[in-house]
Amino acid sequence: MVRAAVMPGANQPLQVREYPLPALEPGAVLLRTIYSEVCGTDVHLHRGHLAGVPFPLIPGHINVGEVVDLAGTPTDLEGDPLRRGQVVSFLDVHETCGRCYFCTVAQAPNRCPHRRVYGITYSADEGLLGGWAEMIYLKPGVHVVPLPHEVPPERFIGAGCGLPTAMHAMERAEIALGDTVVVQGSGPVGLTAAILSQLCGATQVIVVGGPENRLCEAERIGADVVLDINTTSIEERLARIMDLTQGRGADVTIEASGNPQAVHEGFGLTRDAGRYVIVGQYTDAGDIRMNPHTDINRKHLEIRGCWGSDLRHFWRGIRVLAKHGDRFRWERFISQRYGLDQAGRALDDVEHYRTVKALIDPTL
Amino acid sequence: MVRAAVMPGANQPLQVREYPLPALEPGAVLLRTIYSEVCGTDVHLHRGHLAGVPFPLIPGHINVGEVVDLAGTPTDLEGDPLRRGQVVSFLDVHETCGRCYFCTVAQAPNRCPHRRVYGITYSADEGLLGGWAEMIYLKPGVHVVPLPHEVPPERFIGAGCGLPTAMHAMERAEIALGDTVVVQGSGPVGLTAAILSQLCGATQVIVVGGPENRLCEAERIGADVVLDINTTSIEERLARIMDLTQGRGADVTIEASGNPQAVHEGFGLTRDAGRYVIVGQYTDAGDIRMNPHTDINRKHLEIRGCWGSDLRHFWRGIRVLAKHGDRFRWERFISQRYGLDQAGRALDDVEHYRTVKALIDPTL
Amino acid sequence: MVRAAVMPGANQPLQVREYPLPALEPGAVLLRTIYSEVCGTDVHLHRGHLAGVPFPLIPGHINVGEVVDLAGTPTDLEGDPLRRGQVVSFLDVHETCGRCYFCTVAQAPNRCPHRRVYGITYSADEGLLGGWAEMIYLKPGVHVVPLPHEVPPERFIGAGCGLPTAMHAMERAEIALGDTVVVQGSGPVGLTAAILSQLCGATQVIVVGGPENRLCEAERIGADVVLDINTTSIEERLARIMDLTQGRGADVTIEASGNPQAVHEGFGLTRDAGRYVIVGQYTDAGDIRMNPHTDINRKHLEIRGCWGSDLRHFWRGIRVLAKHGDRFRWERFISQRYGLDQAGRALDDVEHYRTVKALIDPTL
Amino acid sequence: MVRAAVMPGANQPLQVREYPLPALEPGAVLLRTIYSEVCGTDVHLHRGHLAGVPFPLIPGHINVGEVVDLAGTPTDLEGDPLRRGQVVSFLDVHETCGRCYFCTVAQAPNRCPHRRVYGITYSADEGLLGGWAEMIYLKPGVHVVPLPHEVPPERFIGAGCGLPTAMHAMERAEIALGDTVVVQGSGPVGLTAAILSQLCGATQVIVVGGPENRLCEAERIGADVVLDINTTSIEERLARIMDLTQGRGADVTIEASGNPQAVHEGFGLTRDAGRYVIVGQYTDAGDIRMNPHTDINRKHLEIRGCWGSDLRHFWRGIRVLAKHGDRFRWERFISQRYGLDQAGRALDDVEHYRTVKALIDPTL
Repeated sequence: MVRAAVMPGANQPLQVREYPLPALEPGAVLLRTIYSEVCGTDVHLHRGHLAGVPFPLIPGHINVGEVVDLAGTPTDLEGDPLRRGQVVSFLDVHETCGRCYFCTVAQAPNRCPHRRVYGITYSADEGLLGGWAEMIYLKPGVHVVPLPHEVPPERFIGAGCGLPTAMHAMERAEIALGDTVVVQGSGPVGLTAAILSQLCGATQVIVVGGPENRLCEAERIGADVVLDINTTSIEERLARIMDLTQGRGADVTIEASGNPQAVHEGFGLTRDAGRYVIVGQYTDAGDIRMNPHTDINRKHLEIRGCWGSDLRHFWRGIRVLAKHGDRFRWERFISQRYGLDQAGRALDDVEHYRTVKALIDPTL
Repeated sequence: MVRAAVMPGANQPLQVREYPLPALEPGAVLLRTIYSEVCGTDVHLHRGHLAGVPFPLIPGHINVGEVVDLAGTPTDLEGDPLRRGQVVSFLDVHETCGRCYFCTVAQAPNRCPHRRVYGITYSADEGLLGGWAEMIYLKPGVHVVPLPHEVPPERFIGAGCGLPTAMHAMERAEIALGDTVVVQGSGPVGLTAAILSQLCGATQVIVVGGPENRLCEAERIGADVVLDINTTSIEERLARIMDLTQGRGADVTIEASGNPQAVHEGFGLTRDAGRYVIVGQYTDAGDIRMNPHTDINRKHLEIRGCWGSDLRHFWRGIRVLAKHGDRFRWERFISQRYGLDQAGRALDDVEHYRTVKALIDPTL
Repeated sequence: MVRAAVMPGANQPLQVREYPLPALEPGAVLLRTIYSEVCGTDVHLHRGHLAGVPFPLIPGHINVGEVVDLAGTPTDLEGDPLRRGQVVSFLDVHETCGRCYFCTVAQAPNRCPHRRVYGITYSADEGLLGGWAEMIYLKPGVHVVPLPHEVPPERFIGAGCGLPTAMHAMERAEIALGDTVVVQGSGPVGLTAAILSQLCGATQVIVVGGPENRLCEAERIGADVVLDINTTSIEERLARIMDLTQGRGADVTIEASGNPQAVHEGFGLTRDAGRYVIVGQYTDAGDIRMNPHTDINRKHLEIRGCWGSDLRHFWRGIRVLAKHGDRFRWERFISQRYGLDQAGRALDDVEHYRTVKALIDPTL
Repeated sequence: MVRAAVMPGANQPLQVREYPLPALEPGAVLLRTIYSEVCGTDVHLHRGHLAGVPFPLIPGHINVGEVVDLAGTPTDLEGDPLRRGQVVSFLDVHETCGRCYFCTVAQAPNRCPHRRVYGITYSADEGLLGGWAEMIYLKPGVHVVPLPHEVPPERFIGAGCGLPTAMHAMERAEIALGDTVVVQGSGPVGLTAAILSQLCGATQVIVVGGPENRLCEAERIGADVVLDINTTSIEERLARIMDLTQGRGADVTIEASGNPQAVHEGFGLTRDAGRYVIVGQYTDAGDIRMNPHTDINRKHLEIRGCWGSDLRHFWRGIRVLAKHGDRFRWERFISQRYGLDQAGRALDDVEHYRTVKALIDPTL
């Protein structure tokens, strides 16, 4: 039997349940979970902030594991057959249809209505389709990516979901060499966006966030300036950023905070004719006021929402980890590890900002 | 002496004043005004909606005239010397510095803080620097564009300020062949955006606006569907547009209405991963509510403000007039002509939507 | 039994062979062929200019037919189930893998090594997988597109393969409103590129090609200037185009001629900092000389190859046909119709430029 | 009197001449030269490879100096007045007209026909308009950029002309996070392109060049792999790069070698649907053969010439120096310093690859 931590429903305590080992369809892969991530999205799932969650749910959408079984000859992106014993991760998004208007005409498969996501939109009743379990069942066609030897599992999971999310944000941000970038938010997405902004050529990166432990991480990974939202006012932050940008504001701002009010603040922090990428508003946390004249039209501002991620973000992100892992040591984002029966506590610690990154280790 | 219609101050009645014929600096050009436009911006100027207007003001930023005098050998874009007797227009924007951060590093000269605009930011005390006058003084360096013979003055001024403005909006809109475009607003900018959307490859153009006379124009210039804001509810318009787009919304929406609430409506009318260009919010008409999650982030929406215009929009716009003038007959937007001493009435008619386009003819 | 015109091998006479009616796998569709196209590529196939052609081959990659049978509930892009009696076309490209580097990381599925193409890379031994036959077997997953009622089969096939090919070229060309575009070549791709350039905003379109019957078509569909390669020298054409562009050359040039020498000429016809799209070199017709300094580096030129097409080009192309079909009447490109047993003569007529577009009608 | 090293004509020995101190027009600035660069272009000037050089010439287009005099209140990009004693550089390109088709409609001021360049297109008869002199006269309007304190003059001149040139190449290259980049050439442009590729997100940078001293520099600045053109064949290099890219070739290739044959090789080193930036062909070194089918069309390749640079490349480049100077230590590119009367020997050393970067120090 396979043990898994299960969310029975919104706001209900997590349970450890046991499931039988699944039989493998042709093309399927069975992973022994090494680590699974506890992500802010998991808190939102548990709090019932997302509509249509198919409880009971095995959470865990970013995972690393060892191939213990496979059926047929599933291959990786290079066409190489997967092998037992390989340490791999996989793209949580599956069943993108490749046939609808969004997949084809609009070239926006991230808005394909047929997408399913491991650990989020698959129910535990459908199988071991989330990472908070001893084993994960990879359906035929899931994009499996072997980790290169430069990327130990701990480093990969330390980067976690924030990596492909921030990779996508960078694609939208189109940072130019010499830009000043403001990152709003210092959670995993914000910190990785601050790293990647440097890797994309920004020469000044300013992180606006909190609490202090996260801002220490921001400084460690190279932020030029950090501004603590708990000890500064909106006006003070604006004044400081104007001071750092000769009164213009950032060339590019990345919103990765989850707080709708940050969006309002972000308009002001960005220079005229700049770019504002909104990647942190993954759940509906309420409306804001904005002024179409001053915030957008006269400002000649470009605003880009950024939803989900695709294999290219995931695969390129692993290339970045392999190259720059020793410099940024994403594993340091991991504050604590939790066994399956401690999953509820992990959620609680993430929700209350007591950790940058929590991970599930089913062997604990 | 040269007669000019002058705004002495916000909300004060217009006056006709007389000015001496100016002496020409080297490189300057003197135009005899053929037509000047009455634009929505002129109403905003008069109502005091814009900050820092240097009253007394000679309005009129889009103009066509005949070269009656010149000093030295000012040239056009092709390097050809201007000649007395030529019928020309000119870019209202002048003194873009070419040296500041916006002009050079950001490649956004439309946000250069040094820009001056004929008929808007030059005072009557500085000279004949607006078109509601018998003569216009073109300072050295003003971009003068001879009208090709295919573009009679009446057609040019019928297109007016809406043409370069909508040309810029098209550049921001990046319409693809086969797109559905919604245009919000049926004033001069909206109507021209509806024309240009067709010329850029949209195969379905939907105009949301009013009142009826303007929507008749929208139909005349080829809009596939028009929706009257005075006779339909927001819900009805949304339902209709979803029906016309298989439930997705427009690929691209162009906001050209001037009403902040249109922006809120526009988010809903645009498909996921679509593009929304905001070009109609030229004055501050108030805040709106919006939801960063549903309107931008999850929607993967791209929003682009669009401010001002540059010589490329102006010059390319004249190419469009020369090619497609007979098809769209912009001169039909002109509802009425006014002499200099009727300028106040012209403003009133524009303000109350009694006209699509009013023009000033100093000979009347 | 189903009759089909078959190429047994390179340079061998075509034969009409009979095949049994296929049984349908789940998701498959059987079409009764209404029309199939004779494309320049078919001549190259027959002449052995392409490597790895799986003879015997049933040519015909662009087709229109009636659904006569289907298994399961295959759907179109909108998710609507296909129905018997529908008149449809389909994307000739199939089996794009969606998993390789090109499909995912590079976002260039047109270079996916797994692609197969109806009428080109499928053998007759594999089934009725080309259009020069009474019936066409659509494998599960083939993208089927119902023709809207505004697009009669004859108009669709008159546009043929040139439409998606030129649609893709337009995507690469990024034409701006007011541009001058030179199209090299006046075959189906060139003529449609000349049409689409107008629909994308070009205000001056110059077609360089021949022979005379094709240039008449070019004028009919709105080319501003046509230059006959049979009656003008390279120097004369260069001089004429410089004259039409104030000595600068075209903003954008589209190569659609198939002649490598056209590429060399095209560099000179394009202005500095312009864009040159090469879409006509679908087979290897030899090397050319070029000068990296004068042709590319100093010229600050952008050159874009353009290979294949995808569903978005195909689907958007049909939108264009539906909107602009009456204006451009693509069916007039059809010079002659041929029955299956006249397919060899059709190839011969296309090869010797006796026709703009030939079509196969299996009922003849 | 001011001493200057002068090229009297093509292939003639350099001479040291004396010029009177110039009087300053309003807006002009006088610099005391600290360092001037010896660039490959200077060798081409001297060899007569460029047309229309206005001999006698004071070479030296990239320079750093101290403000010793100024007339009026010339300002920098931020609008701050320049001050005596400031250490500054300046954009060598001047008199871009801002009015022609290229400056306005085409948005390609780098192809403005009115541009003049310090040290290249200004004659010594026109003034102290090149850097190989004790003093440099900056005409009114020259873009002067104060060096921040993090950028010592030696580091700035070590980067030299290669920095803005490579900055521009990066803009054209649009490198994505995780890309493999091949740089052809290991001179100053190639080495800086290899640095900047890393700073733009490339995770694998391969430098193809020579001789050995330059490849050592390439390794020092972080190239993952270097391939010596003197000890490897074209076939070996191709095989190696294919091996490093899973058989696909580089995502992006930057040609910075100056050898036309490199362009032919570069097509093969770049993957299908990749991008090829040609920035090294600054003089006409002859034709090459290429195949439009295999090299461009079928390959779906994008090729971009890259000519000149503008203030944004220059200014952003200095931001990069200020941020990453200690990491890459551009001053190490400087192999040797030469006084004015040693300028001829400096040219000879650069021509024969005995140095990566030579500089002129007028005090020696």
